[in-house]
Amino acid sequence: MAKIGKLTILLLISSEEEEKELFKKVSNLGYKICIGKAGTMDSKEIIAAIETTAKREGIFSAGCYRDEHVVYHTILSALKGLCRGEIGIGNFLRTVGVKFVILRGPIDTTQKNLGEWISVGIYGMIGAPIKGFEHEAIGLEINNI
Amino acid sequence: MAKIGKLTILLLISSEEEEKELFKKVSNLGYKICIGKAGTMDSKEIIAAIETTAKREGIFSAGCYRDEHVVYHTILSALKGLCRGEIGIGNFLRTVGVKFVILRGPIDTTQKNLGEWISVGIYGMIGAPIKGFEHEAIGLEINNI
Amino acid sequence: MAKIGKLTILLLISSEEEEKELFKKVSNLGYKICIGKAGTMDSKEIIAAIETTAKREGIFSAGCYRDEHVVYHTILSALKGLCRGEIGIGNFLRTVGVKFVILRGPIDTTQKNLGEWISVGIYGMIGAPIKGFEHEAIGLEINNI
Amino acid sequence: MAKIGKLTILLLISSEEEEKELFKKVSNLGYKICIGKAGTMDSKEIIAAIETTAKREGIFSAGCYRDEHVVYHTILSALKGLCRGEIGIGNFLRTVGVKFVILRGPIDTTQKNLGEWISVGIYGMIGAPIKGFEHEAIGLEINNI
Amino acid sequence: MAKIGKLTILLLISSEEEEKELFKKVSNLGYKICIGKAGTMDSKEIIAAIETTAKREGIFSAGCYRDEHVVYHTILSALKGLCRGEIGIGNFLRTVGVKFVILRGPIDTTQKNLGEWISVGIYGMIGAPIKGFEHEAIGLEINNI
Amino acid sequence: MAKIGKLTILLLISSEEEEKELFKKVSNLGYKICIGKAGTMDSKEIIAAIETTAKREGIFSAGCYRDEHVVYHTILSALKGLCRGEIGIGNFLRTVGVKFVILRGPIDTTQKNLGEWISVGIYGMIGAPIKGFEHEAIGLEINNI
Repeated sequence: MAKIGKLTILLLISSEEEEKELFKKVSNLGYKICIGKAGTMDSKEIIAAIETTAKREGIFSAGCYRDEHVVYHTILSALKGLCRGEIGIGNFLRTVGVKFVILRGPIDTTQKNLGEWISVGIYGMIGAPIKGFEHEAIGLEINNI
Repeated sequence: MAKIGKLTILLLISSEEEEKELFKKVSNLGYKICIGKAGTMDSKEIIAAIETTAKREGIFSAGCYRDEHVVYHTILSALKGLCRGEIGIGNFLRTVGVKFVILRGPIDTTQKNLGEWISVGIYGMIGAPIKGFEHEAIGLEINNI
Repeated sequence: MAKIGKLTILLLISSEEEEKELFKKVSNLGYKICIGKAGTMDSKEIIAAIETTAKREGIFSAGCYRDEHVVYHTILSALKGLCRGEIGIGNFLRTVGVKFVILRGPIDTTQKNLGEWISVGIYGMIGAPIKGFEHEAIGLEINNI
Repeated sequence: MAKIGKLTILLLISSEEEEKELFKKVSNLGYKICIGKAGTMDSKEIIAAIETTAKREGIFSAGCYRDEHVVYHTILSALKGLCRGEIGIGNFLRTVGVKFVILRGPIDTTQKNLGEWISVGIYGMIGAPIKGFEHEAIGLEINNI
Repeated sequence: MAKIGKLTILLLISSEEEEKELFKKVSNLGYKICIGKAGTMDSKEIIAAIETTAKREGIFSAGCYRDEHVVYHTILSALKGLCRGEIGIGNFLRTVGVKFVILRGPIDTTQKNLGEWISVGIYGMIGAPIKGFEHEAIGLEINNI
Repeated sequence: MAKIGKLTILLLISSEEEEKELFKKVSNLGYKICIGKAGTMDSKEIIAAIETTAKREGIFSAGCYRDEHVVYHTILSALKGLCRGEIGIGNFLRTVGVKFVILRGPIDTTQKNLGEWISVGIYGMIGAPIKGFEHEAIGLEINNI
């Protein structure tokens, strides 16, 4: 059995090489996948990057408010996880360089009867705007869509 | 190169079998490791479970306030990540069943000159107190110690 | 045109007499409705009261995790609105006596093509555990379901 | 009996026609009233719009710090209710179009001996910066002044 | 010139001997003062201790909701300052031992025309429920009353 | 016995004359001290001002990420105390004019065996961007370094 959250995390922390193979495997399990990167001090740019990528890669249809609404709230919660509480990046004088992964599919591969779910994961470095003064952080949220 | 956060996450999402081998590998990279489980509706029980396990497994010495203080704040922030914002479990009518991992060692294996760091990861299921009504969540925090 | 949020608010602030007529009107507009009351110092009791009432009145099916998950998060956010920030009742030495309303139906009566939405409203008195030392508060959240 | 919060909410959700009649009625009950609109992605602009309108319409005197201080905190808390938790609009990549209402007068019309109170209500649409991708939200706070 | 906040802080951090003399001095400047102590893991007990002491010592009249409401919110905000964010003591597995001071009088001694203000200060030790594993914290809030 | 937090607070609220003498006294107790001022509507400018001053005055070495990381989190928490909850200045339409103090040394002068600690205190006026419409606030955080 594979779970949507664990698959998201595996893709998040995979190297470029591992990612290709894993992408196929997760795709074959019945998930739509999109992956991207963002580096910014502005929280709304991360949200925009994830949402735009998800739209372009067909995770949800651009004209569908229902889906957009779920994706938006899933991103916002994942960002709260990344920030470990209150959302703040540049206004807290810190910067992030992250990879993000969005999966759409079953909550786990044994429960396809529970309908479609969306998982947004964000992983990367957070820290001072000084080279090397940063450590890892991760955020994940899962919702039905 | 291996990073303390990614190693923590890998241990968190590993199966029982994978965990044994990974434990050795991470240990050989120069990390002290402890792993445990907690299932509760009470936020202070998760904090206590992680802190007690860390003490018992020698992540920090029971009599050392400096180290206890860092471990405590690292747990608290990881819990904020797990809860994606405000900390709340039973008071929000939800329950968690989680695995936690604590690593102590270098921030990454190529920068041993940066001293010792601690990473606390929490991963598992969060949801209603109804069987199967739950999804995955993860929280991670990293501090120097 | 009638909107799901405004209808929820109208039901929340209606007197007992107005409520009967309004209930019929909102019902005829195509909404499932449930209404209840809760008086407590314990945040999880409000959540439980709303969720249990919604289940019993058929707003969502007891066995459907997807719907329960949406209803839960909608309640939690409405409660944040009621508390104007961080959720806290008894732990903040205050008590609430509230009416709650749940609607399920179109986001507004002119956009039935946007699928089903859920609206949770909570309105009542919040204050010190001293008779008469209280004022009004309201919380509302809307999600697609 | 009429309560300051319920009157605020009624004015907030009234149509333009209903508003005129309601304005007179609430005014006759002994309340100073001001009503306005704001559309923005910037949280400080909502605060400024409400505070400026309140000052201009004589809800409080421009030179009175005591009253300005109460009005400010009442607006801030109403905004937390509107945002259902942490205040964030443009930094969370969302936009709001709202109507606001400020009442100054008795906490309810039967308790004029409790002195003057202020109620700030904000109601409108919150959502993505995409036409039609939005739903309703409401925030309300009440303080003595 | 003496300010209400600074006087509150001076009383908070004074030793028992200094306190007596300072009490007289602050009293002669036109302030009502009350001072107390609380040791607990329960946030509502701190709120209750401060509010009860303020009532008993005549900072506000027991039957006056207006004043009680201001005092309550001033305590709540001072507690947020003490907790540096989200309010949490026992639920965060920590304990506090604090002194609190309430002043009622002018915002500063040169501006008696600005009416009466209330200042609540809380200062003491916060930490693990282990002897000596604790450090100092302070919270202060000021409102007009 | 003198505690790091109380010494920080004493320096924060001292007048210019008192400060000179106190500076010597605290310095003789074994603390590194730096003191500065900041007036802004932008939260990241306060963080930058404190961090830059600390670096320039030798509280920590510019190249040391470990120390910078602790100093950063100590500032962030002190700022939460100053804001009494969620961090917000200009985005909440308010401005601050503050003095800040950083001490590095023992947690108290009788426990030099507990290693080095850092204390960041911020004290000053917070309020509307209108002259005189402001009151005092204080924030303090203590960490081991």
